[in-house]
Amino acid sequence: MAAVPAKRPGPRYYMIIYKSTDWWEALRHLRSSGIIRLLLKRVLLVGLYATAVTAFFIRFDKMNIQVDKEFFSFMGIMLSLLLVFRTNTAYDRFYEGRRLWGQLVNNCRNLAVLLHARLPATDYATRTYFARLLANFPIALDGHLRKGVRFEKLEEADTGFIERLRGADHVPSRLSALLQELFERLLREDILLPAHLITLQRHHEGLLDVAGACERIKATPIPFSYSYFIKGFITVFVLIMPFNLLDTYQYLTIPITMFGAYALLGVEMIGDEIEDPFGKDSNDLPLTQMANRIRANVHEILGVELPETVKGLADAPYSVVF
Amino acid sequence: MAAVPAKRPGPRYYMIIYKSTDWWEALRHLRSSGIIRLLLKRVLLVGLYATAVTAFFIRFDKMNIQVDKEFFSFMGIMLSLLLVFRTNTAYDRFYEGRRLWGQLVNNCRNLAVLLHARLPATDYATRTYFARLLANFPIALDGHLRKGVRFEKLEEADTGFIERLRGADHVPSRLSALLQELFERLLREDILLPAHLITLQRHHEGLLDVAGACERIKATPIPFSYSYFIKGFITVFVLIMPFNLLDTYQYLTIPITMFGAYALLGVEMIGDEIEDPFGKDSNDLPLTQMANRIRANVHEILGVELPETVKGLADAPYSVVF
Amino acid sequence: MAAVPAKRPGPRYYMIIYKSTDWWEALRHLRSSGIIRLLLKRVLLVGLYATAVTAFFIRFDKMNIQVDKEFFSFMGIMLSLLLVFRTNTAYDRFYEGRRLWGQLVNNCRNLAVLLHARLPATDYATRTYFARLLANFPIALDGHLRKGVRFEKLEEADTGFIERLRGADHVPSRLSALLQELFERLLREDILLPAHLITLQRHHEGLLDVAGACERIKATPIPFSYSYFIKGFITVFVLIMPFNLLDTYQYLTIPITMFGAYALLGVEMIGDEIEDPFGKDSNDLPLTQMANRIRANVHEILGVELPETVKGLADAPYSVVF
Amino acid sequence: MAAVPAKRPGPRYYMIIYKSTDWWEALRHLRSSGIIRLLLKRVLLVGLYATAVTAFFIRFDKMNIQVDKEFFSFMGIMLSLLLVFRTNTAYDRFYEGRRLWGQLVNNCRNLAVLLHARLPATDYATRTYFARLLANFPIALDGHLRKGVRFEKLEEADTGFIERLRGADHVPSRLSALLQELFERLLREDILLPAHLITLQRHHEGLLDVAGACERIKATPIPFSYSYFIKGFITVFVLIMPFNLLDTYQYLTIPITMFGAYALLGVEMIGDEIEDPFGKDSNDLPLTQMANRIRANVHEILGVELPETVKGLADAPYSVVF
Amino acid sequence: MAAVPAKRPGPRYYMIIYKSTDWWEALRHLRSSGIIRLLLKRVLLVGLYATAVTAFFIRFDKMNIQVDKEFFSFMGIMLSLLLVFRTNTAYDRFYEGRRLWGQLVNNCRNLAVLLHARLPATDYATRTYFARLLANFPIALDGHLRKGVRFEKLEEADTGFIERLRGADHVPSRLSALLQELFERLLREDILLPAHLITLQRHHEGLLDVAGACERIKATPIPFSYSYFIKGFITVFVLIMPFNLLDTYQYLTIPITMFGAYALLGVEMIGDEIEDPFGKDSNDLPLTQMANRIRANVHEILGVELPETVKGLADAPYSVVF
Repeated sequence: MAAVPAKRPGPRYYMIIYKSTDWWEALRHLRSSGIIRLLLKRVLLVGLYATAVTAFFIRFDKMNIQVDKEFFSFMGIMLSLLLVFRTNTAYDRFYEGRRLWGQLVNNCRNLAVLLHARLPATDYATRTYFARLLANFPIALDGHLRKGVRFEKLEEADTGFIERLRGADHVPSRLSALLQELFERLLREDILLPAHLITLQRHHEGLLDVAGACERIKATPIPFSYSYFIKGFITVFVLIMPFNLLDTYQYLTIPITMFGAYALLGVEMIGDEIEDPFGKDSNDLPLTQMANRIRANVHEILGVELPETVKGLADAPYSVVF
Repeated sequence: MAAVPAKRPGPRYYMIIYKSTDWWEALRHLRSSGIIRLLLKRVLLVGLYATAVTAFFIRFDKMNIQVDKEFFSFMGIMLSLLLVFRTNTAYDRFYEGRRLWGQLVNNCRNLAVLLHARLPATDYATRTYFARLLANFPIALDGHLRKGVRFEKLEEADTGFIERLRGADHVPSRLSALLQELFERLLREDILLPAHLITLQRHHEGLLDVAGACERIKATPIPFSYSYFIKGFITVFVLIMPFNLLDTYQYLTIPITMFGAYALLGVEMIGDEIEDPFGKDSNDLPLTQMANRIRANVHEILGVELPETVKGLADAPYSVVF
Repeated sequence: MAAVPAKRPGPRYYMIIYKSTDWWEALRHLRSSGIIRLLLKRVLLVGLYATAVTAFFIRFDKMNIQVDKEFFSFMGIMLSLLLVFRTNTAYDRFYEGRRLWGQLVNNCRNLAVLLHARLPATDYATRTYFARLLANFPIALDGHLRKGVRFEKLEEADTGFIERLRGADHVPSRLSALLQELFERLLREDILLPAHLITLQRHHEGLLDVAGACERIKATPIPFSYSYFIKGFITVFVLIMPFNLLDTYQYLTIPITMFGAYALLGVEMIGDEIEDPFGKDSNDLPLTQMANRIRANVHEILGVELPETVKGLADAPYSVVF
Repeated sequence: MAAVPAKRPGPRYYMIIYKSTDWWEALRHLRSSGIIRLLLKRVLLVGLYATAVTAFFIRFDKMNIQVDKEFFSFMGIMLSLLLVFRTNTAYDRFYEGRRLWGQLVNNCRNLAVLLHARLPATDYATRTYFARLLANFPIALDGHLRKGVRFEKLEEADTGFIERLRGADHVPSRLSALLQELFERLLREDILLPAHLITLQRHHEGLLDVAGACERIKATPIPFSYSYFIKGFITVFVLIMPFNLLDTYQYLTIPITMFGAYALLGVEMIGDEIEDPFGKDSNDLPLTQMANRIRANVHEILGVELPETVKGLADAPYSVVF
Repeated sequence: MAAVPAKRPGPRYYMIIYKSTDWWEALRHLRSSGIIRLLLKRVLLVGLYATAVTAFFIRFDKMNIQVDKEFFSFMGIMLSLLLVFRTNTAYDRFYEGRRLWGQLVNNCRNLAVLLHARLPATDYATRTYFARLLANFPIALDGHLRKGVRFEKLEEADTGFIERLRGADHVPSRLSALLQELFERLLREDILLPAHLITLQRHHEGLLDVAGACERIKATPIPFSYSYFIKGFITVFVLIMPFNLLDTYQYLTIPITMFGAYALLGVEMIGDEIEDPFGKDSNDLPLTQMANRIRANVHEILGVELPETVKGLADAPYSVVF
């Protein structure tokens, strides 16, 4: 049990808090959002490029470029439509990830409710084993989707539990199999009836379904062709943008090009970031906190005690956006 | 039982009634919609800004600004596309919240129908206990999603029921576990067959599924990056808007800029408001009323009496939009 | 049984027939579509307004208004995007209503098939009771979603059936409970096995699921803020439209403004109408006819006779669009 | 058995083959696509109209029409947005139809697998009866969705089978009931256990679910108001198109108007055609071939022989697009 | 067992690796994406055409073509909207294919977990038979969706297994039937209870559901009418593009036309490629690798040994994009 360190996650997991109706507070968080900072850096680069172009043309007095503004505008609208498509697919992936972890919460709670009502109130040993085993699933999945399972974070369900788990290639599958073994044992001991097995099943299989779907999201970015195609389109479009503005705006071409680049690059970059919701950027999902909350819920429902320090992790001191 | 106060919710829960095909009546409700009033206030602010810009330029006779109207139009269309994306995600969240509570209604009714047909007609005690227990779930969930469960609103299912519940961290889970305990008791008493357990299950687990999904909606606004990005885009766009209109419209720039700001800010602000359907604004979902209606339905199906004052809450005197 | 009147629904239920590939025939139905007529009336009003504006400006010779056509065009495109969003949500609600009633057809047919195969061929009394009870569900739901259940339309499943039903607050729930009571009786009589109960369940619970979902659609129009916001946007846009066209078109401003108003008002108004699919306009769903068809199907599957006049209602003499 | 004629469907069922990446080959199929030909005919009509307009204006030397090109462009974009909405709904209906028939394939295969494993290998009579009964469902549904069931196409499952079926009003329901009767018989004979009934159920009920959903698609085109509204919008838009182009293009107005009409009419007309996927145009679903393929699959899984001529129908000599 | 060759798939299966946030690295992969190269080739062709047009007009000094740029721009936007529709449907199909294979992973893992917990730990023979039988399903489906099942890739589940399979017309159905036969045998031997059959069912039937849905995706491209219509629209639009740009850009018409062609042709071509996710282009799904991974997972869960060479195939040396 003691394997869970009481210290809280460091600042690099810090999630951005904001009240969505307050515009000014939102601006204050600018610095903590990595992707927004990277975006501003790139916008600056475009600004330098626009400055060079503008300076050159003004220096050599070639401001009377003729441009077909309607054509340029149509190309821009087409690009915008593609970017919205791209945004949609990225957001869908982000939200599907969130939905899956919400489903994991539901599955774990329902499993706990079902076993709580069936396990004898006095069988504290089985209750504890089950609570820890189940609570380990989201913790292991969190690691599995990121840098690899951190075994020291898991609960020691019985003696040598964590040690035996280290041999597994696919830890979530192993935990699911251990749960199924437990159900079969309880069935043999007549604690569960066959009908209970049927009612348990949907939630139990839901664990691996969530794991598999998260792996899918992680492993499937938008097809390379689209990604490349859109990046190519934006690059060319931004590069010719100053030439379209020069004759009208002279030196104002520089900030206006930067504004245009901000819009186009921004949508594309946020899409790139959002489409992997299992990373560790400030926009990613707080998997660790959700896993901690599931642990607290499951232990409460089953009436199994959890050290206060571990329980406290579920209500992290920082509020979480997602 | 008596814990439910008979007084009706005060005016701050007032929901806007409207017949969607009547345009004039809609205007009449302007004052009661908080978000529309805030919008108009912001539009006024933009008007002041536009007045300052216009006055300055006219005063110093600098009206011959050259602008690239096609470029500005393209940027506006791109912004519109992003706002429609934003509107879609906000509305989806709003409607998913509504759908979830509709599902809660269905689950409660179906559970009541199933137990009604199986419980002996004479076992009024169990019928009453079950009806109150089940009716408490939506009432507790309503509180859980807002300011916290208000225990005095709950039905006293048996002696000391509410008091024991106060100890729970996650009240909906606790209520779900109590329901499951009841089912197991009825199974031991041969009132329910194993097959009944299987048929009950989908509706019972549906309760926690709805609770978990509502928690997800509440805790997951649109990613911070998008929110910030769009707010930034709108701000810059509105700020440069008067400069684009000055040469054509002179003093008319002021109302036209306000009209533009109305459209852009409006879509963004309504999206911000709608995406949390569990607040208490006039556009949010009437959770309390739905919980009252479920209580009345469940009691009617099971043939358990409900005081007229409590029953009356299901048909609140105000009609409800959502 | 005799409670169902043989006379057919009058002309106010008339649904518009059209073959979607024939453009000319479509025009012929203009008069029977209430919403199209209302639209044309409003377009006429806009025409009067445009005439007044045009006449005034030409009279006082102020035709040289300067306008920023690109800005106006961008605002129009933004409005169009919002209208497409609005159209989408309205249509989704319309189509979900249709889908739900299609599901009701499936649930009733499947229930009938399951009981037909299990009930002894000779037990005509139970077959008749079940067929009438089940057939009453869609008929009651039709009334429940419109002006209230018309009890005289229901089938008299056994003596005093309709009379007893009058006491119920929520008739569909009551019918669902009666079905469940029947299943429990058949289970006690060993006509149904526990396994049958499980297979029946999905279709039985589907009845209340459909009822609840239809209630949700009926009670949840698009949020008031959006509705008001879009109506406000259109109103302002149409009011300033003639000013944008005057300098180019002079008297032609009038028909062109009307054309623009036709497009904008039309999308909004059709959206308003379509989003409540349970009304009685010519675009709404033919609930009564679908309920009659379910009655005929259920009776045929179970081999229970139905008077020819009642059966005939399922194939109404008018073809139905939806 | 012999009821199935060996002759293959005639050329009017011919489906268009194309490899989607080959543009040139696509052009070759122009002639076989009825809707494309009708489109070209209408484009020609528009061409004649444009010729008349152009000739008249040039003849009377009135080429200096002033037009507001931005307004016209905005109206065109709005119309395009509506057409994309229309296209989406039509395509969704088309693809839902395809999905439903795919589900029918899955349900039939799974039912065959389940009964194959349970029926004694020696009970060839029941295997044959079941295979033919099941294979009849898609064949009957195909007819039911088109011109009516063609009984001579069905398999004679036992003596007088087809004759008895002729009395049914709704043939798919009747076939589903016969399947359920078979399952009940096998249950009584202890060939199926109650647990098998439960596992069979989802696939069995899926048959009627598919039938009902296909009926829904067939009976629910896009609401009349939308259809009329869009047709009216396109008509007016195309009629005023030449006037907008005359001053710029003179005689070139004719081909350019035709190009515009091609785009607008095309999207609308294809939508009209695609939204009923159960017709017999070259873009509709090859229901007959799918029904034949299900028959071959079911017979193979159950080890029941099928005459080569009948089997061959599943691999029709023409490749099929959809 | 030895039937699986240890050699790894050759370079033609090479999938493109990219980190989605790194723009520069993305460019490096240009050469390996077939569709991007084909696109560039076509853009070059358009360039030649634009050169011819430009040269001709400049040679004969006919640069003063009058064009209606707004009309052209509106047509371009309409085309863009259609292309986004087309992109959406293609991407949906691509992603549905990916989702289906993810579901296949889940079904196989869950089946393995369920049988692992129920099969006696000592019954290594049945475990091996089951692991190999199950692992064969995705391998066979991979072949079935591409060039045909390659039997030498399958695991020899028992003596003569592969040989007997060669006779089957539809190999996935045959494997599903063998699984069902195994379950029935275990039921007769009381290793599985009836309740297990019910819990197994969803995953077992999921195998054929995935197979059928993949067949549907493969056999149903976007309707021919749409495909032809869009290709026709693009062709005409690109052909008249240089004429619209000539008067403004002179020789610059050539690169700008190429840029426009890049955007329009690109979206259409990528859509064509992406919509069949079961091909062997670099953007298609790595079915073979997924099948190998399922094999490794299933063997691990059931505790059945797998030769290291075969196991290694699941972690191919190349990282995979999708």
